Amino acid sequence: MKLTQLAYKTLRDTGSDAETSSHALLLQAGFIHQLGAGIYSYLPLALKAIKNIESIIRYEMDKTGAQEILMPHIQPQELWDLTGRTTAFGDNLFTLKDRRQRGLVLAPTHEESVTTISKSIIQSYKDLPFTLYQIQTKFRDEARPRAGLIRVREFSMKDAYSFSANEDSLDEIYESMAIAYKNIYQKCEIPVLMAEADSGAIGGKDSHEFIYPTESGEDTVITCSNCQYTANVEKAIGILPAENHDTEAPQAEISTPGVTTIEEVCNFLNINANQTLKSLCYSADGQLVMVCIRGDLNINEVKLKHILNATELRAASTAEIEQEGLVLGSMSPLGISNINIIGDTSIVTKKNLTAGGNKPGTHIVNINYQRDFHVNQIADISTVTEMHLCNECNGKLEAVRGIEIGHIFKLGSFFSESLGLHFTDQDGKQQFPLMGCYGIGVGRLLAAVVESNHDDKGIIFPKNVSPYQVHLIALNANDETCYEKAHAIYDSLWDHGVTCLFDDRTDQSAGVKFRDSELFGIPLQVIVSPRNLNNDICEIKLRKTLETYSVPLGETIDHIVNSI
Amino acid sequence: MKLTQLAYKTLRDTGSDAETSSHALLLQAGFIHQLGAGIYSYLPLALKAIKNIESIIRYEMDKTGAQEILMPHIQPQELWDLTGRTTAFGDNLFTLKDRRQRGLVLAPTHEESVTTISKSIIQSYKDLPFTLYQIQTKFRDEARPRAGLIRVREFSMKDAYSFSANEDSLDEIYESMAIAYKNIYQKCEIPVLMAEADSGAIGGKDSHEFIYPTESGEDTVITCSNCQYTANVEKAIGILPAENHDTEAPQAEISTPGVTTIEEVCNFLNINANQTLKSLCYSADGQLVMVCIRGDLNINEVKLKHILNATELRAASTAEIEQEGLVLGSMSPLGISNINIIGDTSIVTKKNLTAGGNKPGTHIVNINYQRDFHVNQIADISTVTEMHLCNECNGKLEAVRGIEIGHIFKLGSFFSESLGLHFTDQDGKQQFPLMGCYGIGVGRLLAAVVESNHDDKGIIFPKNVSPYQVHLIALNANDETCYEKAHAIYDSLWDHGVTCLFDDRTDQSAGVKFRDSELFGIPLQVIVSPRNLNNDICEIKLRKTLETYSVPLGETIDHIVNSI
Repeated sequence: MKLTQLAYKTLRDTGSDAETSSHALLLQAGFIHQLGAGIYSYLPLALKAIKNIESIIRYEMDKTGAQEILMPHIQPQELWDLTGRTTAFGDNLFTLKDRRQRGLVLAPTHEESVTTISKSIIQSYKDLPFTLYQIQTKFRDEARPRAGLIRVREFSMKDAYSFSANEDSLDEIYESMAIAYKNIYQKCEIPVLMAEADSGAIGGKDSHEFIYPTESGEDTVITCSNCQYTANVEKAIGILPAENHDTEAPQAEISTPGVTTIEEVCNFLNINANQTLKSLCYSADGQLVMVCIRGDLNINEVKLKHILNATELRAASTAEIEQEGLVLGSMSPLGISNINIIGDTSIVTKKNLTAGGNKPGTHIVNINYQRDFHVNQIADISTVTEMHLCNECNGKLEAVRGIEIGHIFKLGSFFSESLGLHFTDQDGKQQFPLMGCYGIGVGRLLAAVVESNHDDKGIIFPKNVSPYQVHLIALNANDETCYEKAHAIYDSLWDHGVTCLFDDRTDQSAGVKFRDSELFGIPLQVIVSPRNLNNDICEIKLRKTLETYSVPLGETIDHIVNSI
Repeated sequence: MKLTQLAYKTLRDTGSDAETSSHALLLQAGFIHQLGAGIYSYLPLALKAIKNIESIIRYEMDKTGAQEILMPHIQPQELWDLTGRTTAFGDNLFTLKDRRQRGLVLAPTHEESVTTISKSIIQSYKDLPFTLYQIQTKFRDEARPRAGLIRVREFSMKDAYSFSANEDSLDEIYESMAIAYKNIYQKCEIPVLMAEADSGAIGGKDSHEFIYPTESGEDTVITCSNCQYTANVEKAIGILPAENHDTEAPQAEISTPGVTTIEEVCNFLNINANQTLKSLCYSADGQLVMVCIRGDLNINEVKLKHILNATELRAASTAEIEQEGLVLGSMSPLGISNINIIGDTSIVTKKNLTAGGNKPGTHIVNINYQRDFHVNQIADISTVTEMHLCNECNGKLEAVRGIEIGHIFKLGSFFSESLGLHFTDQDGKQQFPLMGCYGIGVGRLLAAVVESNHDDKGIIFPKNVSPYQVHLIALNANDETCYEKAHAIYDSLWDHGVTCLFDDRTDQSAGVKFRDSELFGIPLQVIVSPRNLNNDICEIKLRKTLETYSVPLGETIDHIVNSI
C-alpha cells in the first residue's frame, strides 16, 4: 500500500478526551474513528492489526480443537428470559422491539444461543466433548464508555463455549484454553497476570481473569510476591495478622457530638482507624443486615453477597436504617439483637476498639468481641489490602491495577439446565452437559498491545500484530531516481511475500515522514534517500530501539527477508 | 477435521418450512441453524464456505484498490435523521434507545457512517479518489423473512463506498466494481444477469443489479433475446407495437350492471383486455391522480412515482376517490377535467377501447384518445411484459425471475451534501465528492451457490467455495488396516496443504457415509475400503458427475494434489 493512496489522516492533536496512551495514539495515527459514545470504526491500518490479532486467536483456538461458528447478534428476548439474564444484565442489555412488537436482545454474550444450537447436535455422550467458538461483535450498554477501545458499547470478541460429559473433560478443556490464552498474549507481546476471579451468580466452579497490568486499568489484582497466588480483589483472600495481645480494658461511653465517620472518630480521639469498629447496613433481598469490620478495612460486597446467598445486595437507605431504630453515624452491634449481624474476621484481630454507641453523639471505647457484643456469623468479607498476608504462603501481597483482557469460566450445568440441553450417558441416563465459556476481547487486545508497546513518539507494533512488516520511506520522492529505486524495493518486497507500506508522498518533508513512521509503529523501517543512493546503501531503522544501520543497496531485500 | 469430532448433525427431514433448495439442503446438512425469524447461525462447515466466499470478495475488492475498514452496527439516530433515512427506511429499520434514552439505529447500510468518517480524511482533491469497503453484518426488519438465507433480518454483506472528485472518476470506479462483481460470481460458479435498476429516491445516475436467475426468486428481470439489454422490471422500458389502424367507430353507452373489473367487462362484452382502458387513482403526496393504461397492462409504480416526482405514492382510498365524485368500477377520463390525469403510452396503441362511463353500471365502447378524452400527460408508466419489444433493437423481450445477489449504485452527491462532506478542488473551490456504493450479500451468495450447484442428492460445491477440498471416507473404519491407511492419507493430504474432511465414523454404514458425502457436496471424494486395499487401489469419486475411478494406492496423494 502506498501512503498517497491510503485513506487516512494523522492528527496533530487528539483533543482532551484521550485518557490512555492507546486511545491517544490510535486516534492520532488515524487508526480509529469515533461515531458515538463507545462506538468506533477501524480504519485500514487498525483493521489489518485486528485481523492479525484474530489470526493469532484462531490459530490458538484451532490448536485446542475448538470449531469456529458464527451466531447472530439479534436474538429473541424469550430465550434470555428462560435463563433470567434479561433481568440479570439490567441496563447493560440493549433491547428492542421488532415491527411485530416482539422483544429482541442485542447479544452481549452467546451462552443462550450456543446452548440452543447444541440441542440440535448433542444426543449422546458420544457427541461430547466439543468446543465451539466465534469471533463476533458484542453489545453492552456501558454506563461510562471510556479510554478509546478499552470500554466500549460495541466490541469484537472471541467467545468459546465447551460442552463436556463430566468434570474431568471440562477441567481438561479449561486448562487447554488457559494455555491458549497465555500463548495469545505472548504472541501479542502483552504481559499478563492470570488471576482467580469471582464466578458470579451462575455459580460455576472456577473462573480466571487475564489482567494486563497498567495504572490506567479499572481492575485490581492481588498478587503474592512470594508464591504464585494471584486473584482479582473481588475474589482475593488474605490473612490479617492478629495484634490482639492487649488486655481487655473496661469499656466507657464518650460524648462525641457531630462525630459520625471513622475519620472523624480517629481525629476526635487521636486513634488509628485500625482501632475502630465500622458498622454498615445492607439490604440483602429486602432484609436488613448489619455488617461490622475493622475501621481501616472495606467490605468486599462480592464476598458478602456470597455469604448471604443474596440475589440482590445494596447499601440500606437511611429510612431503612432508622426504621430499625438505628442511629446513622453511631451504629454498632452493641446491644443489638433483633438484626442479622455479620462480622468480618478482622474484628478479632485487635482488642479495645472504638465503636458507635447506638445513640446520637455517642461512641464507646474499649469494646471487645464476645465480652461486649456478639454477631450471628464471623466471615471473611473484607477487601484484601497490602496489609494482608498471602493465604497460601504468608508472603507479602501486592495490589496491582490492570485491564481485564480475557476471562475463562467453568459454567457448570446452569445453561444446559435452564434451556433443557440433555445427553444420554453410557448407562442410558439423561444428564446435563457441563459447559465452560472463554472470552477475549479483540479490540481491547489491540488497545492493550498499544498500551504495552509504545513510547513517546508512537506505537511500537509487535511483529505478529503490525499492519505491515516494513515501512518503506522514499525521503525525497520528487527525486526520480530515489522514487524509482524505492518503488523497485517496494515491488521486490511484495514479490518476496513481505508486506510493505510505502511512504511515496512528494509533498511532505523528511521530518513529517519520520514522525508518521514512528507514530504508525511498523517494526522495520527502510529509508531510501538520494544521499544513501549515492553511497550505494540503504538505511534500516528498528522502530523499537530507533537504532539505525546501513546495508549495501544490493543486499537490502535479502537482509529484510532474513531479519523478518 | 474428523467427522467424529465435528460438531454437527444431519437431518433426515427439514420440515415443511424450507421453500427453496438452498434452504432445505443447508438445514439438512446441518450447516445452518435458525434461532428466530430470519435469524441464523452458521455452523462449522457453512462458516468455512462463507470464509471462502469472503476471500474471493476480498481478493476482488483489493484488486480494485479498495481498502478494507470496519464500521459499527449501532449508530446514533441523529446521523440518520440528517439524511432523512430514519423515515425512508420506515419499518425496515431496527431502532432502539440506550440507557440514556438516546436513539440508536441498527445499521441496514453504512452510507451515513462512511461519509462521516470521510470528513476526517478528505480535505483536498489530492485525497481523492478512494474506495472503502467492509464485510459486516446488516440489519433489516423484513416483513416476511423467507427461504433460509435468501431473505433474513440479519445478514453479512460486503459494502463498498467510493469517493470521487468528478464524474469520470466515479464512472471508472463503477466500471471496475462491475468487473469485480462479475469475477466474484464466476469464481462462485453462479450465473448472473447484470440488469439496469431503478436508482431510487436518492436520484443517483446509474444503478445495476446482479440477478441470479431462478424460479424461486422474487425479482423479475426483462432481458432482450437479441441484444444485451437487461433491466429490472421496475426500471425496464419497452416498445408496445401499435395496432391502431382501425377506423374510429362512434362511441356508445352500454348498461353494465354489476360489472366493475376489467375481467368482468371482457366477459360481459366478449372482448380482450387489450381492447379496454383501465383507470386507477393514486394519492401522490396527498394529491389525487388518475392514471389510465391499456387494460391488459399494469402500472409500474416506480415509473409513475418518478413522473410525478412524488415522495409518497399509494393507491387512493375509496373515500378519496368518491370525494372527487368518481365511481369505483366505472372510472375513466371521459369528461373529467378537475383531476390530474396521466395516460400510459399504451392508450394510443389501439383504437375503439372500452372504458368506464363515470356512472354506476355503465361503460362506454369505442372511445379514442383525443377524440373522446384528454389527459394531462402521456408517459411510459407501464410494467414491461413479453408483449413489449426491446427499446434498443426491437428484439423479443423475456421476463426472467431471479434473486438479487449484488447491487452497484452511483449515489452522486446526496450523502456528501446531506452530511457536509467537502473537498477543495484545484481552483480552491469547495465541492461535494461524488459517491458510489457497491453491495453484495455474503450469506445470500452462499444460498445462491447452493441454488445453482446442487442435485437431488445434495450440494455440489464449486472448488473455490467448498469447506474442504477432499472428503475422505474410510468405508470400514472398524477395520484397523483400513482406518490406519485412511488416516495416513488424511495426514499426508494436510501435509501437502490439501484441506480434508475425514469420515472416520465406526458406527455408520457405507450407505450413510455416501449419503452424507453427497449431501455435503465437497467436490472430490476419496474412498478407502478393505476391498480396495486388497487390490492396492483407492477409489476417487467426483461429486459433480458422481463418476468414480481407481488410482493405484501409492499414487493417490500425487493424483489428488494434481487434480485440485
